[in-house]
Amino acid sequence: MKASTQDRSLPTEARAIGDVAAEMGIGPELLEPYGLGVAKIRLEALAALPAGRRARYVVVSAITPTPLGEGKTVTTIGLGDGLRRIGRRAVVSLRQGSVGPTFGVKGGAAGGGRSTLIPFDRVALHLTGDMHAVTAAHNLLSAMVDNHLFQGNALNLDPATISWRRVLDVNDRALRNIVIGLGAAQDGVPRQSGFDITPASEVMAVLALSRSLADMRSRLGRIVVGHARDGRPVTADDLHAAGAMTVLMLEAIKPNLVQTLEGTPTIVHAGPFGNIAHGNSSVIGDLIGSRAGEFLITEAGFGADMGAERFFDIKCRVSGLRPDAAVVVAACRERGVFLRDAKLMGSQLGRHALRVAVKSAEQNAEVVSEIAQAFGSA
Amino acid sequence: MKASTQDRSLPTEARAIGDVAAEMGIGPELLEPYGLGVAKIRLEALAALPAGRRARYVVVSAITPTPLGEGKTVTTIGLGDGLRRIGRRAVVSLRQGSVGPTFGVKGGAAGGGRSTLIPFDRVALHLTGDMHAVTAAHNLLSAMVDNHLFQGNALNLDPATISWRRVLDVNDRALRNIVIGLGAAQDGVPRQSGFDITPASEVMAVLALSRSLADMRSRLGRIVVGHARDGRPVTADDLHAAGAMTVLMLEAIKPNLVQTLEGTPTIVHAGPFGNIAHGNSSVIGDLIGSRAGEFLITEAGFGADMGAERFFDIKCRVSGLRPDAAVVVAACRERGVFLRDAKLMGSQLGRHALRVAVKSAEQNAEVVSEIAQAFGSA
Amino acid sequence: MKASTQDRSLPTEARAIGDVAAEMGIGPELLEPYGLGVAKIRLEALAALPAGRRARYVVVSAITPTPLGEGKTVTTIGLGDGLRRIGRRAVVSLRQGSVGPTFGVKGGAAGGGRSTLIPFDRVALHLTGDMHAVTAAHNLLSAMVDNHLFQGNALNLDPATISWRRVLDVNDRALRNIVIGLGAAQDGVPRQSGFDITPASEVMAVLALSRSLADMRSRLGRIVVGHARDGRPVTADDLHAAGAMTVLMLEAIKPNLVQTLEGTPTIVHAGPFGNIAHGNSSVIGDLIGSRAGEFLITEAGFGADMGAERFFDIKCRVSGLRPDAAVVVAACRERGVFLRDAKLMGSQLGRHALRVAVKSAEQNAEVVSEIAQAFGSA
Amino acid sequence: MKASTQDRSLPTEARAIGDVAAEMGIGPELLEPYGLGVAKIRLEALAALPAGRRARYVVVSAITPTPLGEGKTVTTIGLGDGLRRIGRRAVVSLRQGSVGPTFGVKGGAAGGGRSTLIPFDRVALHLTGDMHAVTAAHNLLSAMVDNHLFQGNALNLDPATISWRRVLDVNDRALRNIVIGLGAAQDGVPRQSGFDITPASEVMAVLALSRSLADMRSRLGRIVVGHARDGRPVTADDLHAAGAMTVLMLEAIKPNLVQTLEGTPTIVHAGPFGNIAHGNSSVIGDLIGSRAGEFLITEAGFGADMGAERFFDIKCRVSGLRPDAAVVVAACRERGVFLRDAKLMGSQLGRHALRVAVKSAEQNAEVVSEIAQAFGSA
Repeated sequence: MKASTQDRSLPTEARAIGDVAAEMGIGPELLEPYGLGVAKIRLEALAALPAGRRARYVVVSAITPTPLGEGKTVTTIGLGDGLRRIGRRAVVSLRQGSVGPTFGVKGGAAGGGRSTLIPFDRVALHLTGDMHAVTAAHNLLSAMVDNHLFQGNALNLDPATISWRRVLDVNDRALRNIVIGLGAAQDGVPRQSGFDITPASEVMAVLALSRSLADMRSRLGRIVVGHARDGRPVTADDLHAAGAMTVLMLEAIKPNLVQTLEGTPTIVHAGPFGNIAHGNSSVIGDLIGSRAGEFLITEAGFGADMGAERFFDIKCRVSGLRPDAAVVVAACRERGVFLRDAKLMGSQLGRHALRVAVKSAEQNAEVVSEIAQAFGSA
Repeated sequence: MKASTQDRSLPTEARAIGDVAAEMGIGPELLEPYGLGVAKIRLEALAALPAGRRARYVVVSAITPTPLGEGKTVTTIGLGDGLRRIGRRAVVSLRQGSVGPTFGVKGGAAGGGRSTLIPFDRVALHLTGDMHAVTAAHNLLSAMVDNHLFQGNALNLDPATISWRRVLDVNDRALRNIVIGLGAAQDGVPRQSGFDITPASEVMAVLALSRSLADMRSRLGRIVVGHARDGRPVTADDLHAAGAMTVLMLEAIKPNLVQTLEGTPTIVHAGPFGNIAHGNSSVIGDLIGSRAGEFLITEAGFGADMGAERFFDIKCRVSGLRPDAAVVVAACRERGVFLRDAKLMGSQLGRHALRVAVKSAEQNAEVVSEIAQAFGSA
Repeated sequence: MKASTQDRSLPTEARAIGDVAAEMGIGPELLEPYGLGVAKIRLEALAALPAGRRARYVVVSAITPTPLGEGKTVTTIGLGDGLRRIGRRAVVSLRQGSVGPTFGVKGGAAGGGRSTLIPFDRVALHLTGDMHAVTAAHNLLSAMVDNHLFQGNALNLDPATISWRRVLDVNDRALRNIVIGLGAAQDGVPRQSGFDITPASEVMAVLALSRSLADMRSRLGRIVVGHARDGRPVTADDLHAAGAMTVLMLEAIKPNLVQTLEGTPTIVHAGPFGNIAHGNSSVIGDLIGSRAGEFLITEAGFGADMGAERFFDIKCRVSGLRPDAAVVVAACRERGVFLRDAKLMGSQLGRHALRVAVKSAEQNAEVVSEIAQAFGSA
Repeated sequence: MKASTQDRSLPTEARAIGDVAAEMGIGPELLEPYGLGVAKIRLEALAALPAGRRARYVVVSAITPTPLGEGKTVTTIGLGDGLRRIGRRAVVSLRQGSVGPTFGVKGGAAGGGRSTLIPFDRVALHLTGDMHAVTAAHNLLSAMVDNHLFQGNALNLDPATISWRRVLDVNDRALRNIVIGLGAAQDGVPRQSGFDITPASEVMAVLALSRSLADMRSRLGRIVVGHARDGRPVTADDLHAAGAMTVLMLEAIKPNLVQTLEGTPTIVHAGPFGNIAHGNSSVIGDLIGSRAGEFLITEAGFGADMGAERFFDIKCRVSGLRPDAAVVVAACRERGVFLRDAKLMGSQLGRHALRVAVKSAEQNAEVVSEIAQAFGSA
């Protein structure tokens, strides 16, 4: 079944999302459609997919990107499409972009040119609401922190130590530094605080690193919001907040499935920023993706020195997955020089460091075949 | 097809949402599933449904409710279920509840007892993310207001007159009165402001009153955020914000379809508060519902003196629909006294005022049959 | 000895302040000169002056004044000068004006025209620094309140109940409502507060009502700054602040002596506002003045309904002095109508109500002779 | 005439302040008494004193002081007393201390032990109100800055660039960082600002550096409060504030005369902090003092690396006076080592560096005779 032509954001040639899932071995009983062309994958998929096989795991990072980006997402999508063109079953795994910068200069993390995700508008905006769920869970804890101060502060939390702010997925400079709790006595305890953008939320980092619902619940409970006057850390569990936060994230923990313009299955899940968080898509998404094809191509955000470091040191340590290749995107003038550097980096990374700076699947052919050959036995 | 038993929030006896829609005359080409048991109805349904027929339109309100509510939603659902039990095709139309009070005392506007909507958790929490889209659109305008001040204030907007605050769907007393724009020079212009709960947003009121996408775009553009120093109102269109706000609400404008525990089709769309906004579900939802059955039962929030007044004076004026009966829910000790009052109110409302204070479809039988008889020719 | 001609603010014909004091029976051992033409009277003067005699006590008030004032001070000074011209020993007693409004529209409470105090500049500005001492004592208590919150709040003072603000003797709208205690942790506890003008300080009211140094110390200690969470009032004594506040006011409690342009002895001491405090000059000043001449003419600020009421009900109750006459200044068109009203007010006040609206001693002659005759036996 | 025994703060053996002034060659026509034992010296004294003669000019500084101070003031007073004991006419010149720290740990800059100024209480507290006049002038400008913003900001002053804060002579941590201009529209323009302690005011620095009333008026006018949006500095003159500020400081510009416990004439005038301002007493005071004796002993605050540097580089450049000797106070264990260092510093200072760490005139004898011998020809 082709998707309806009535929807502006889904081209007529798009595959039905159920077909895309089927290519991954995910049947309709493990899928929850969320509007045309989008579905959530139920967590039960993890157990349902064959455990024995595991896809080759390729991480794409970049040199420190320019303000306009370096092309990591385009490359990641292009590699997936290219592998699929030469007959290999590939799955792409990406972070969800922030709506905030979408209305600014940078792209919405949905790729560009022909290396694009569809439905483009929904991937670039709300998708299935995970970003909003993170916002809601984060701010519920914030409200409970301030309400705790207001209700007598039984935990003796020192207001000057509270590091837990609030978040919104909007670029709003006026919220960076604010004073809250003003007004009448019942309007709370005055305090300096502020808002960060949602991808900077620790709740987002938790979502990205959780291996299961129970793991997420536990990680949420261990969040430290500040310190008591005796120096003891005060956690979300101390405030009895983590249960309600988990309820708010019951849908968000399920990975989202979309496709590239060429129909390659793409998991888009969690969006921690690379500069202030660990900059990688979700562990759950990669655990599912690694059982759903021959290749899993994922991206580590904001430069090899940040996102890729954290991919190796944090994300892989949590997921237990081991990368088979690393691709470092770089704008360069002299190809020779670059390749030498890339190989140097590659040797440090352990195995393969391959450079791509192309904008479509066709141009990626060289790298694609290199990857395919390197893992010919896959 | 029955929904999977794996989902905690959807009972095994639940009808597939496509079957529910089909009962309304809405085929799969007009439906966008959003997780199990939930779908959005495409706006094209308005034109696709038969224009000639129109359902009997029953509005349920109440005396000024107690802090624990008065039972309006339970009654509305009960009437729909009752009518359907006696063989009449009924559709229920309700507001979406706020997540904020969900974690407080009051119910989440999803009914109670056996007069409940399913999937209960999702109706009570994010549903399809409309509340979050309203939050995002509202706060995008807020950010653009403050950024306009920061960038030189070409419109000469007087900061002291800005009435456009920010919103979050959380009960957070500490955000009621805040000072924003503190910090370094690039962190904006200091100003007093604050957050309201999302159901109090004018964007929510706009969503509820819009007849079409173009109408919503136009209404968003006319929002007044404050006044210039020469007294002229400054609007969202003056700030070039309404286009982006509309983009953020492309999904939100599509009504959501769920079902009651007994399988009655229920449209849940828009959630303006009854005390500070007009307290009624969306015009688009009722326009679709009125062409999708014999009876359309809707609710006007927060007491007859507020929600019902605005139902008659504002919502019906915009939709062009005329109510056929009004039900006033009241807790009373002496039935005789109440009925006398209810009839008095009924005569004022124009036609039928019927009292119900029951908690399940069975107990609503008397009122159901009264309504059915009153409109026997329907 | 005449004052030097080098000082701009003291005319050459001014009497030496020692001569002015001598006319009151106050010798140099009871006088502390404070720059040319100004002296403080030591508190020992109270015991040193003859206790048996007591001057006739005349209070000057007015109808509710216009924004430009009604002429109370001019009349008070004029009456003093007039009585002295006809050979009676008169002493004038006035409040010290606020510097704040001095740079605004209204006069500096130093009279006008020929009914003026000298040295005009110093009376209008700092005089002997009493206003500043009140400011310092008030703000010392403010700092100790906030430091108490910061140091652990042993008294369990509820920040939301703190009514003790800060004061400055300047018209500064931007300080009316502020948030304090921002910045780093060591910069205090964030709180809403603000500044009032110094004449509105309760410390000023205390200065004006104290009968002695010990009385002032005791009154300062009883100042309530807010309430503990158990509802108990928290006082300056609870914070151990009143001793230091008293030290800061050791000079301020001594009345200041200046003269009118005609040389009439004039005590200028304390300046509580008439709208928010009791609006009368100091009790100590009047106790000394009442033993230092045949007539003591004083002024009750901001209209008979405010300052004069408080003169009778508060100031006289504290001082034990009983007024012999009340003069109500009023701008009127029909003299007959006014006199009838004034007599009516007079009968209410107990004895004499006399109207004057003149601007110099000469024009006051009628009222002066009326007062002098009424008390011919003095 | 001995001062009255009734005043607690002036010992019976104190000299009459007129006698103290006479020793300096200052007659009563140049003196304005300000309470017992205190007088202001009229600026006319500068012209009236003999211009030909000039006192030896000795500056006392110290190594970086401990939190409890190092003994600079005690040494300065002791040197003056010692020189006078051996028959030389010496005048001491000191800064006025801040009331703020007086209620804290540190001393009130009035010396200690037998090297003390009298009347001690008044020197330690208000003295003649100069500190308050600086506070008033400073805050008048602050109020005019914010009122300018409120009244339409004709100068296009960029609020984010305003560096002019407010001052109070009190240690009040809660005022360091505040938000002002909150409340209703007429309560001003919201802005971050704060209070410093009065000795940190640029107005205090101006008072200390002015050579005349006209010079002070001019320096006040050149104060920069912030910058216009086009980058141009905005001054007190631009705001038409400097005239009124000067009026508020007409008394403050006259140096204050008190005495040491041994009767040595001591000028106490201006009190800029050594850490944030230039840390030296007034130029006018030293210009008068340098014509009023054989030796003028002054102090440069807060360590030789700060106050003494600024004494040489700033104060002397403005006054035109050249120091004849520098005394560096230091606590040391090995006298030999210290003297070597002191001589090293002395050679850098140009001439004499002498160490004293004694607490009374008697113990200072060695240094006194060294100074006296060094300038035997004076």
